Amino acid sequence: MKKKNRTLDVAVVCVISLLLIPVLIFAAKAKPPGNAAYDIRAKCYGCHDEIKALKEGSKHAKLACTTCHAKFDAHMDDPEKHKPVTIIDQQLCGKCHKNQVASFFNVNRDGGARKEKGVPAGRSPMQDKLLAPYGFTFEHNEPRGHAFMVIDQFVVDRFQGGRFQFKEGWKGIDKTGKTWDVLIDKGAAFKLKETGMAGNPTCIQCKSSDHILKWKFMGDTDPRAKWNRTSSVVDVARDTHNPVGCIHCHDPHGTQPRVVRDAMIQAIERDARNNIFAKEGKTDLKVIAFRDDFRKIGVMGKTDSRMMCAQCHVEYNCGGGAQWSDGKPVTFTDRRTNHFPLKNALQLLKHYRELDFFDFRHAVTGARLIKLQHPEAETYAGSVHDKAGVQCHQCHMPRTRGKDGKMFSTHGMVKPKLTVKASCLGCHKDSTVEKKLYEIESVINYTKGKMRKAEYWLGQLIDAYAAAERMGVSPTALDQAREKHEEAHVLWEYWTAENSDGFHNPDLARESLTESIAASKAGVKMLSDAMAALRK
Amino acid sequence: MKKKNRTLDVAVVCVISLLLIPVLIFAAKAKPPGNAAYDIRAKCYGCHDEIKALKEGSKHAKLACTTCHAKFDAHMDDPEKHKPVTIIDQQLCGKCHKNQVASFFNVNRDGGARKEKGVPAGRSPMQDKLLAPYGFTFEHNEPRGHAFMVIDQFVVDRFQGGRFQFKEGWKGIDKTGKTWDVLIDKGAAFKLKETGMAGNPTCIQCKSSDHILKWKFMGDTDPRAKWNRTSSVVDVARDTHNPVGCIHCHDPHGTQPRVVRDAMIQAIERDARNNIFAKEGKTDLKVIAFRDDFRKIGVMGKTDSRMMCAQCHVEYNCGGGAQWSDGKPVTFTDRRTNHFPLKNALQLLKHYRELDFFDFRHAVTGARLIKLQHPEAETYAGSVHDKAGVQCHQCHMPRTRGKDGKMFSTHGMVKPKLTVKASCLGCHKDSTVEKKLYEIESVINYTKGKMRKAEYWLGQLIDAYAAAERMGVSPTALDQAREKHEEAHVLWEYWTAENSDGFHNPDLARESLTESIAASKAGVKMLSDAMAALRK
Amino acid sequence: MKKKNRTLDVAVVCVISLLLIPVLIFAAKAKPPGNAAYDIRAKCYGCHDEIKALKEGSKHAKLACTTCHAKFDAHMDDPEKHKPVTIIDQQLCGKCHKNQVASFFNVNRDGGARKEKGVPAGRSPMQDKLLAPYGFTFEHNEPRGHAFMVIDQFVVDRFQGGRFQFKEGWKGIDKTGKTWDVLIDKGAAFKLKETGMAGNPTCIQCKSSDHILKWKFMGDTDPRAKWNRTSSVVDVARDTHNPVGCIHCHDPHGTQPRVVRDAMIQAIERDARNNIFAKEGKTDLKVIAFRDDFRKIGVMGKTDSRMMCAQCHVEYNCGGGAQWSDGKPVTFTDRRTNHFPLKNALQLLKHYRELDFFDFRHAVTGARLIKLQHPEAETYAGSVHDKAGVQCHQCHMPRTRGKDGKMFSTHGMVKPKLTVKASCLGCHKDSTVEKKLYEIESVINYTKGKMRKAEYWLGQLIDAYAAAERMGVSPTALDQAREKHEEAHVLWEYWTAENSDGFHNPDLARESLTESIAASKAGVKMLSDAMAALRK
Repeated sequence: MKKKNRTLDVAVVCVISLLLIPVLIFAAKAKPPGNAAYDIRAKCYGCHDEIKALKEGSKHAKLACTTCHAKFDAHMDDPEKHKPVTIIDQQLCGKCHKNQVASFFNVNRDGGARKEKGVPAGRSPMQDKLLAPYGFTFEHNEPRGHAFMVIDQFVVDRFQGGRFQFKEGWKGIDKTGKTWDVLIDKGAAFKLKETGMAGNPTCIQCKSSDHILKWKFMGDTDPRAKWNRTSSVVDVARDTHNPVGCIHCHDPHGTQPRVVRDAMIQAIERDARNNIFAKEGKTDLKVIAFRDDFRKIGVMGKTDSRMMCAQCHVEYNCGGGAQWSDGKPVTFTDRRTNHFPLKNALQLLKHYRELDFFDFRHAVTGARLIKLQHPEAETYAGSVHDKAGVQCHQCHMPRTRGKDGKMFSTHGMVKPKLTVKASCLGCHKDSTVEKKLYEIESVINYTKGKMRKAEYWLGQLIDAYAAAERMGVSPTALDQAREKHEEAHVLWEYWTAENSDGFHNPDLARESLTESIAASKAGVKMLSDAMAALRK
Repeated sequence: MKKKNRTLDVAVVCVISLLLIPVLIFAAKAKPPGNAAYDIRAKCYGCHDEIKALKEGSKHAKLACTTCHAKFDAHMDDPEKHKPVTIIDQQLCGKCHKNQVASFFNVNRDGGARKEKGVPAGRSPMQDKLLAPYGFTFEHNEPRGHAFMVIDQFVVDRFQGGRFQFKEGWKGIDKTGKTWDVLIDKGAAFKLKETGMAGNPTCIQCKSSDHILKWKFMGDTDPRAKWNRTSSVVDVARDTHNPVGCIHCHDPHGTQPRVVRDAMIQAIERDARNNIFAKEGKTDLKVIAFRDDFRKIGVMGKTDSRMMCAQCHVEYNCGGGAQWSDGKPVTFTDRRTNHFPLKNALQLLKHYRELDFFDFRHAVTGARLIKLQHPEAETYAGSVHDKAGVQCHQCHMPRTRGKDGKMFSTHGMVKPKLTVKASCLGCHKDSTVEKKLYEIESVINYTKGKMRKAEYWLGQLIDAYAAAERMGVSPTALDQAREKHEEAHVLWEYWTAENSDGFHNPDLARESLTESIAASKAGVKMLSDAMAALRK
Repeated sequence: MKKKNRTLDVAVVCVISLLLIPVLIFAAKAKPPGNAAYDIRAKCYGCHDEIKALKEGSKHAKLACTTCHAKFDAHMDDPEKHKPVTIIDQQLCGKCHKNQVASFFNVNRDGGARKEKGVPAGRSPMQDKLLAPYGFTFEHNEPRGHAFMVIDQFVVDRFQGGRFQFKEGWKGIDKTGKTWDVLIDKGAAFKLKETGMAGNPTCIQCKSSDHILKWKFMGDTDPRAKWNRTSSVVDVARDTHNPVGCIHCHDPHGTQPRVVRDAMIQAIERDARNNIFAKEGKTDLKVIAFRDDFRKIGVMGKTDSRMMCAQCHVEYNCGGGAQWSDGKPVTFTDRRTNHFPLKNALQLLKHYRELDFFDFRHAVTGARLIKLQHPEAETYAGSVHDKAGVQCHQCHMPRTRGKDGKMFSTHGMVKPKLTVKASCLGCHKDSTVEKKLYEIESVINYTKGKMRKAEYWLGQLIDAYAAAERMGVSPTALDQAREKHEEAHVLWEYWTAENSDGFHNPDLARESLTESIAASKAGVKMLSDAMAALRK
């Protein structure tokens, strides 16, 4: 192992020992101690020169290593055998960054939790038909804030048979904090009716930063990695204590803006000049590898929240599936189960065909379908606001005044509709809250209209397929119609998964959704013609 | 006729003579008159010793019998020929219990009346398909308050061809009071398009207390009873002047908490140890029979609003139907047309199979279906709140301050969402209105999601049945699928009929609705397999 | 050309020259100038005696002709060759009638624009199925105010392939004013996906007053008319600069209440004694023809807003279609493409059968369908309010106080639900805002319930037709079912097109919608029976 690649990678203790907290508070509040017993930076830097490079000269330069790490003595005795303890916990950062952390955990109680999308006035009224038999048909809710991202992922009916439940029942539904203070594991034998067995170790990498030191780049198997793509999702879940941490976007040693999600870094490096973040053929991202490429991070010179948010707010694949070419399964041993396309709605099907991967087959037509995640980054790329240089945080993390009277960027990731003045009027100085809301609502109204039409026509295609199959229409006609379903589906589902109802890129939404409608109509026509021909 | 069973059962004059009102006011306000002309209690007690037992020592002990009864002289002359007049009217009680009666008649004007449930964003968006051809498909509205329970029952399009209409048209839609001040009877020849001919004398026994002395136990035929199960519903309707009265739950002679609904008393006696209200093998209910079992009431030592409300807020059968065993009709001569199962969603189908009764056949599949009423009591039984000893009135009749400054239990039967502070925070002292509302909304969101899924799959089953029948699938396969429809239907419809959207018992709601989904899916699979087999 | 029929009909300059405005302001503000150079009334009257008749003695009598007209000298030199310029622009009237014009252009920003009706909780949730393949399935939005009537007509996806777009994109969506300040024409080559090519010169006559002098009565071809029914709709659109003008309802010369829409005048004259506005066999409308019947207007002695509003708020036909008798196309050369039936929901199908015209064939059943416009006037006719003598403006244009403190009739055409006090309580003096709102909501709830049922059954009929056709049911049975579809459709669609959700005439709504349901059910039964017979 080359020294220059060795870092402070350590065993992570994700549950902060309560005993440690007074020490941490002290460490955070105290001036950087000159006492060598506390400040062992020099010793650490002796091996971890990358850390020195990040830390020295930064705002965090004077923080003792003990602020975030413990158990040094054992580590110094035998660096390979004994790893130091690293605190992965927003509350530690919150000792100084109070407003940011408080806003992250602030709960918006409007409208309640577990709001199913698949209901008539919901975001995806026809999903039970269009996504059958995929796990999302068991329960698929409107998202809550980041503070709930791990909890809601584990408790949802499609995840592991419902074995993870709120400890306090419905009274615990608005509780935030450590996962296992909020949830209990009812055990492997517990199984609720009509639940799925979804979830995998990779998807948790977007929900939590807890495994950052236990997960090799891309989740490959490695003796140094506690978890990998093939690990038991339940074991990984039980080891997940925090929602996404400050360190996902902020380098803790040096405060640099950064990204840590492996498949995101891979996708940017795969297409360095033309990826969705590149301006004039490049991005301001410097990739740093640790421990012989065991782990990589990407550090930016300047904050680019488009990349920081895109660590999760993209379409990515994290599950098993099958190949277009031969229908063979793609399992978790395959790197395609940790993959960011970074392509938009119009490009995705082609991308996945070339990757030779699809997620599932539709229950009625057998169409090979992609299950979309929340492709906000790809949608935003190339939009009017993106071209104008606006980044995610300007709208979703507007500056506001904390309880202490200081201005700060809210880390609650708000819906800009609730903060129009702060989110919009900084740039749109001649406009008004009322006017901007009207514009936003209009885009949403229009896009929702197109989504509903795309769903109607997908439904027509599925029904026509079933009728044609019953009638004995030729396999060739069915195959052709099925391909139309494959086209139409991605072009639609993208928009129910994307969280802006079209606002991030109205033109792209329109183009994609109307192409979906056209493909569905073409499929319906093929089948109607084939059925009419049979009647003659 | 044994004397000890003789009571003050009398002909009821439901329309209070306006001439009587001054007397009544005087009677109520005045001190109990010593004047024998007014106070004939001693004479009454001579025959009616049960009344004496109820009345003496109670808060109503000093009220003269003339407070609620008139025409004694004739009665004394010939007790069998001339019955005294009894006033069944909330306004009489309201002379003293002003706040209670005022709150009963208070109108919540939010959102308007006649809000059809069978619309996309309504409580039962697919009912026209799932309940076809049942009468509820003609009009089925969100319920209004108790003050409208008779009016809304008579005016709804499924009731008697629309012959009962608002006297003042839409301007009369928020009018409360005597039925025939609000409605008119357009006559037997009047028939609106797309209306039903539903309704029967028994169902009116849950809507009004007017017939309490004219109706034999269980509605059996008897010369002493003006009305019975086989009476003309129109005649009974025209004789119904008041919504459910104070006397349904409060004994007028002695103010004891009580129940009067016959099928409810029957159901409790049928299963004295294990009925849904029993704690440790018994209920605090003493059944008193009058006039050789002509009539029964159940008196409680302590208020148990679970039983008082359960007189109506249950699944009950009051209509004709047919037998599972042989398909033969069950008509109003049969006591099964006045029946309370007191069973919950998971138990009901078995119960009705054993009772050998179903309501109607589905228009498409021919499945033998149960039409559910509002099974709040059975749902609540065994819930977290029930186990904790909470009763209906604690949430739905919270104490509030009247215009006179006195605290009283509201008799407007509110939605607790509108009164969280009074309804919830008395017990949940550490919580907040905001937090409780969030929890309530979350339960509702989740349950609604499951309801919509259950409906989707019932719809799929019906469509698959029709397709399979057209294709010529074997009767055996159709029979099996039809049985799945029978299972799935009850497990679903229960929850659209129940008024809490799952909050009364979230676990039961989940279990029932997911079992419904599973049964529907099983039926769809049977039919799909049978159709696929035919194609080969 | 007879002198008495010659008028000031002139070439209209719809874009007001900015250079003219100071003159106009001066003209409007100044006292009627005695200066002959300005006041050429005497000269004008020399030829235009109808104008004199209208103008003299009226409130506008003293206004110089130059207030609204220019380029007289050239006109006097050669009256046939040089037409004077006429200003068709609300802003000109607004110089004096400030409040009225300001209220017309006031924007209600609640809820955003482009709110598609064809979504689950929208006004017409099943339209994509029920109206297929008609152009309204591309985009059909909740209407905005009158200020947007031209803009929204041109920008909607069903109009001319989407070539007309907001100049400023979504930021321009709440902009009012001159059409081509708000929109741009992307050109004939521009075509968005999933758009229609709807629109025709006649429909624009209800959206704008700009063509009043360029359009012959009924839109017939004439060398004196710049536009006629067969003109290019794009050319007419590009020449349309203003939404409906003051002059549609107010005679500019004499301030008389008037109507100008040709097909409306024709329909009233066609049935002078029994048209929907007639009281005791007549209407207070005097039709004046100009220039040898080139143009007609109808002038009233007293305001009758039922007729003024009915110029647009009716079912009218303005598009091509086909004949019931022989299926042959009806093109724009045919006067039936500019036709007002003035018949209500129950009468319309018969009317259109007699007219031998239908709009389109349904995509699945081939039923010959009428596409309804907004038949408010026909709906209102004969309603309780109509019989009581209430006119449209009393509810929709309530009197309010302007910024200048003066009371005036709002010209924003409000929803009375937003102005109950001013709209309702003037007549209903004993009622309250809360009570009236409750009544209105109740009517709407009830009618919406019936609309949703009518849609459900139309959907069932369409599905049954498709299944029957696939099964090989006889053409006779299909024909009979198709006729039921034709009946049921008009009786339903009328109510989604009509904008009051039944309030204008609840009884008519009920009768029509339940007849629709009955017709659909009859069709479904025919098809089910025919399919059952085939299975035997």
